[in-house]
Amino acid sequence: MQKNLSEGTMVLAHPVYVRGKGSAVGQEEAKGPLGKYFDLYAEDAKWGEKTFEFAEKKFFLSACKRAIEDAGLSTGEVDLLLGGDLLNQIITASYSARDLGIPFLGVYGACSGMAESLAAASMLLDGGFGRNILCAASSHFATAERQFRFPLELGTPKPPTGQDTVTGAGATVLSTEGPGRVAVRALTIGRCVDYGIADANNMGAAMAPAAVQSILTHLENRGATPRDYDAIFTGDLGTFGSRLFVEMARQCGAELAGVHKDCGSMIYAGMKNKRCGASGCGCCAVVLNGFILRQLEKGVYRRVLFAATGAMMSTTSVQQGESIPGIAHVVELERVDG
Amino acid sequence: MQKNLSEGTMVLAHPVYVRGKGSAVGQEEAKGPLGKYFDLYAEDAKWGEKTFEFAEKKFFLSACKRAIEDAGLSTGEVDLLLGGDLLNQIITASYSARDLGIPFLGVYGACSGMAESLAAASMLLDGGFGRNILCAASSHFATAERQFRFPLELGTPKPPTGQDTVTGAGATVLSTEGPGRVAVRALTIGRCVDYGIADANNMGAAMAPAAVQSILTHLENRGATPRDYDAIFTGDLGTFGSRLFVEMARQCGAELAGVHKDCGSMIYAGMKNKRCGASGCGCCAVVLNGFILRQLEKGVYRRVLFAATGAMMSTTSVQQGESIPGIAHVVELERVDG
Repeated sequence: MQKNLSEGTMVLAHPVYVRGKGSAVGQEEAKGPLGKYFDLYAEDAKWGEKTFEFAEKKFFLSACKRAIEDAGLSTGEVDLLLGGDLLNQIITASYSARDLGIPFLGVYGACSGMAESLAAASMLLDGGFGRNILCAASSHFATAERQFRFPLELGTPKPPTGQDTVTGAGATVLSTEGPGRVAVRALTIGRCVDYGIADANNMGAAMAPAAVQSILTHLENRGATPRDYDAIFTGDLGTFGSRLFVEMARQCGAELAGVHKDCGSMIYAGMKNKRCGASGCGCCAVVLNGFILRQLEKGVYRRVLFAATGAMMSTTSVQQGESIPGIAHVVELERVDG
Repeated sequence: MQKNLSEGTMVLAHPVYVRGKGSAVGQEEAKGPLGKYFDLYAEDAKWGEKTFEFAEKKFFLSACKRAIEDAGLSTGEVDLLLGGDLLNQIITASYSARDLGIPFLGVYGACSGMAESLAAASMLLDGGFGRNILCAASSHFATAERQFRFPLELGTPKPPTGQDTVTGAGATVLSTEGPGRVAVRALTIGRCVDYGIADANNMGAAMAPAAVQSILTHLENRGATPRDYDAIFTGDLGTFGSRLFVEMARQCGAELAGVHKDCGSMIYAGMKNKRCGASGCGCCAVVLNGFILRQLEKGVYRRVLFAATGAMMSTTSVQQGESIPGIAHVVELERVDG
């Protein structure tokens, strides 16, 4: 019965398969080096909607519908939607849940939303609650900028550690029913870790310690070394946060350079004016559902860790002098032979 | 294996006990008819903190620590914290999770947060994931008013359907280890239901249809009638929303008058200027942990439904012309004999 190894790592007793996946991205993400891996592309930031917020919902819904279709299911066969986004009161996920009509548990884990949803869904399915659970997360550059930073109209320049929020949404259908070519094997639920970073334009630094803690905890509890994985993905540390992450892990005795990849660094790699990389719930959600799962299905990867990181702050908490706690949840994915 | 009866109702295979509870309230709640049932009382809305937001965190943490103590546990023995609040980016829950240092899954379900946390925790424990899970929710009149409506300094009068946000937090430790005098037996995960209400000062009306749907679904899937329960609690429909709720249920063929009680109507019953009752995540969280669980322990109730309701809107969604979807999650609690 007791699947709690220790310190938040859980090993699944029953197979939980990736049955379907979907990703929808904006123009910038389509132009980037991973552009060809995504399913749906918006022609502009509003995608035919009257506001950016309505557009974000369209990304969320489109990714969900694509994942359900890819799973060979109808919406009525999905038992539960677990999802979230960055907007106040997670309106993207909530209004999408209304439109889909699926029982809904809203999650908020900042940019860790995709991993939080996958982790919770895996445990529910392993426990026998439901057959098919849809997990989704989204973000949008324009909705996030005006909520967390400045209205775009002001043209405020970004500081060098400022990351760009990804416009896009990713969705995964997890299922107890195979055959699936990728399965969730284990997961680690993170803690809120706070190293005193108070700069809302340096999220990578705020999240790196949480990523180190959760990933090293996962490795230790699994009795694994970094070399047991083909890749260890972080969500959106960005280029600066990734350097910090590798250095901090090294100081803890783990060498992750080479095996570590960061979704936030990959999605905009080589692109002008995006030197610090990407952030946002949607970032690792689209990289997972567009790129990582495809690589696992093709056999390019056999076993990977997907560790999405979140910065659990609000504009109010930062204005009131609070520092920014980070959190990271880890999901271990493995290719299923056959 | 399959615990999914249908339409979101899940029956637990293993006992999940209420092992500890805690509640902390503000001055108004202490003065109300349920005042004597709560554990901790703040001397004013700031409770010695520099801002209302810091005070809300103190309520959350105080309720959590009280529940852990009541369970006879140390913080290190709690496997997971599941919780949320109404503030943007659920900062109350996140910063509390940082201070407690427990692995954390943040949830957002507006005022349904307490039931969402209990429902998810019950499934995780039933599935064998962990032994003790802490569930908590909070709200604060002053933080909610300035975030969702107007700064208190403006002195804006409330319309007749406007409810007052409860200042307080409730926390419950659920456990696989008994003996406990109260157990979770079943639960229903709600869907987002939208009847087109667009008035942010009429949350009761926005949430009543969701409460009707989830409760009638639960009764149907359990093969039960309203009379099988000593009480059916809704979270915070308020006095106006409660009348709507009973009427809507009647039109669906269920007579709930008499058995229905609303936490939002009970907590301020008979108090001046609070005629529409209370709202907020903290409302049903403190009524559950202060009053309902005590009545179950004493044997005044044997079997009750706890259905917390949430209005899944934001100021942005309402300003952009969206209506307000409601959601309700149901948790069935039963006294354990012996």
